[in-house]
Amino acid sequence: TNAKICKPLTDSFNSFSQVGNLNACYFAKRGFQVEVFESREDIRQAKIVKGRSINLVLSHRGRQALKHVGMEDTIISKGIPMHSRMIHALNGTQSPIPYGKKGQVILLLHSAETTETGAMTFVRAEGAKEEIQADLIVGCDGAFSAIRKQFLRQSRFNYSQTYIPHGYLEFTIPPINGEFAMKPNNLHIWPRNTFMMIALPNLDKTFTCTLFMPFEEFEKVTTGDKVIEFFQKYFPDAIPLIGAEALKRDFFRLPAQAMVSVKCSPYHFGDKCVLMGDAAHAMVPFYGQGMNAGFEDCLVFNEIMDQLNEDFSAVLPEYTRVRVPDDQAIADLAMYNYVEMREHVNSKWFLFRKNVDNFLHIIMPRTIIPLYTMVTFTRTRYHKVVKHWHWQDKVRKDIVHVHSTLFKGL
Amino acid sequence: TNAKICKPLTDSFNSFSQVGNLNACYFAKRGFQVEVFESREDIRQAKIVKGRSINLVLSHRGRQALKHVGMEDTIISKGIPMHSRMIHALNGTQSPIPYGKKGQVILLLHSAETTETGAMTFVRAEGAKEEIQADLIVGCDGAFSAIRKQFLRQSRFNYSQTYIPHGYLEFTIPPINGEFAMKPNNLHIWPRNTFMMIALPNLDKTFTCTLFMPFEEFEKVTTGDKVIEFFQKYFPDAIPLIGAEALKRDFFRLPAQAMVSVKCSPYHFGDKCVLMGDAAHAMVPFYGQGMNAGFEDCLVFNEIMDQLNEDFSAVLPEYTRVRVPDDQAIADLAMYNYVEMREHVNSKWFLFRKNVDNFLHIIMPRTIIPLYTMVTFTRTRYHKVVKHWHWQDKVRKDIVHVHSTLFKGL
Repeated sequence: TNAKICKPLTDSFNSFSQVGNLNACYFAKRGFQVEVFESREDIRQAKIVKGRSINLVLSHRGRQALKHVGMEDTIISKGIPMHSRMIHALNGTQSPIPYGKKGQVILLLHSAETTETGAMTFVRAEGAKEEIQADLIVGCDGAFSAIRKQFLRQSRFNYSQTYIPHGYLEFTIPPINGEFAMKPNNLHIWPRNTFMMIALPNLDKTFTCTLFMPFEEFEKVTTGDKVIEFFQKYFPDAIPLIGAEALKRDFFRLPAQAMVSVKCSPYHFGDKCVLMGDAAHAMVPFYGQGMNAGFEDCLVFNEIMDQLNEDFSAVLPEYTRVRVPDDQAIADLAMYNYVEMREHVNSKWFLFRKNVDNFLHIIMPRTIIPLYTMVTFTRTRYHKVVKHWHWQDKVRKDIVHVHSTLFKGL
Repeated sequence: TNAKICKPLTDSFNSFSQVGNLNACYFAKRGFQVEVFESREDIRQAKIVKGRSINLVLSHRGRQALKHVGMEDTIISKGIPMHSRMIHALNGTQSPIPYGKKGQVILLLHSAETTETGAMTFVRAEGAKEEIQADLIVGCDGAFSAIRKQFLRQSRFNYSQTYIPHGYLEFTIPPINGEFAMKPNNLHIWPRNTFMMIALPNLDKTFTCTLFMPFEEFEKVTTGDKVIEFFQKYFPDAIPLIGAEALKRDFFRLPAQAMVSVKCSPYHFGDKCVLMGDAAHAMVPFYGQGMNAGFEDCLVFNEIMDQLNEDFSAVLPEYTRVRVPDDQAIADLAMYNYVEMREHVNSKWFLFRKNVDNFLHIIMPRTIIPLYTMVTFTRTRYHKVVKHWHWQDKVRKDIVHVHSTLFKGL
């Protein structure tokens, strides 16, 4: 049998095409003849575009998907393990918050180039058109999927694209004396209510800093002096790390980049075409699950291929039925995290929330599992995670209620 | 000045192009040179497509918009006033539920043809391309707007299209001895939980019956005999009205038709193009507000033109800012009504809900205004209607709570 994967053939994960790569491995392992189409130039020769990377967080789901095709160890050896978040308060103090129990870490892969791409055009670079037949076309062509555009012609195709009011800009923290300028095994976070900056380590001992901020705030910072003034007000400890001159320069290198959440249903079109990864469910980057959800897509599709004997006419509708609610749940959680963050995230809130969750987890370890743990360190289906979380929230509120009633009774 | 309205030039409202027509009147009244583009053939000569009409409900908002350009009386003279709903129970009993207080009626306009249309192609029928310049292009080209497709290329354009699991089919109730077969000034409703049929009068003394049902249920009814069996089970009193032979025939005339809810933002693209009506906010037909919201668009745009001296560079962003939340609120209400209906609407529920609302309205006439009244008989901004409704709902619950607490105290 013959399957087409749109996106992409590179020997590296240093691209925005991980789901396509992984899918190719899955189909090849089943004995399919796989052909991969990539509209962009070979990433090994391409110039890296500075300022448009998004770091890739690999956690349990993604690792399980890699493991199945024997790639877990290879990939992990190229990543940096992250044990905890490090919260930077305005006064410069730093407080670590571990991700989970001991041994529960997330992995940070090389930073990845992102582009808006028109993948799998069957028009060759020279302009010649080429028609290609396949038993299955797998669209893994990212948030701006060209394959998905064809789905819009389908009757009763549900689709939404939602841009958030925040944009992002990137800066680099260079090494100091050849070493990381901050602790490397932490996700560094500067929570400042509607603004937020994070820093993630790279293998070359630099950090990539990403500043998230409403577009209207970016528009107010119009000169180099205003950049420094802004950083002095909100991120004073980051100025010496990035460097004042680099800050002034890099703030204006690119316009602030947009972030989009995409949902659609169904994922299949007839029995010949299916969407996976960001093409099916681009999400805002505030849960670090984008790549993991895409990898889990491959794993789930593979499980359904087993169950239904590779009969595409049954596999594709079943994949839609099973996977749509899970992908939409994680896209919603990422958006929820964004809204939470936008509304009231500062360093105190971060610490407080963590403490409450941990306290309840300690007194009722089987009943109260922190949301983040379920998402990041289990393969519990995303939509069940959300259901359980809503239920826990009710329990949490009931406890508070019982508590206050008891106190009134005293 | 020169404004283009996409859609449509007819001298009749018997088309799916009311917002375009009305907009042309508004712009002409301001002294703009208006050119109207209509991709469909002249509706006066066109054959009417049976089975794809949606009746047009005109209520307060739409009437206010028509009044401003002196068209209210002309249109009303062509409509049929509706005083109440008429609920048909399974056993054939009929119970009227008035729309509002005495004198509060809605108007039913001629049934309207709907087609998926690619309006305002600048390609003439002969195939010649034509480039046309205008100071403003107004896209009123319906739920499948071609103008809106161009908006998708815009950076940070939010868009969603959601198809509901229900489809619809239409039947006709012919006159009996030259007269309406049922009371003509009522919206006839057969609520049957997940199914629902409605019947609306036409000027030729027929009724158009619309059966709403999940697609998967339509798929189960595969033969003429099954059609009759289905109607005998759920709508026995409608069989003699429609006629068994006509039922068997018309059930298979067309496949069940889909219904879509469309939201987007912004409504403008630069200072040259703006969307109105279904092109900006197609909604499911369960609140009878689609046309009224579109007409109110014209009125609101006109008010903003007054405020900002016809400066399009200011008018267009302001129109987006003001109108998007209102249109989204009414689209959400229409969807809410659909979900309510799908979950638990039968004849008892209809009567019960109405009674509760009326009771509270009588004891607190200034505080509790039924949602339907605010939407249908006022120009209260839709998003404020929803806000007030949520607040009322809280009051209603508090009353129930206080009530039960009081009883416990006895």
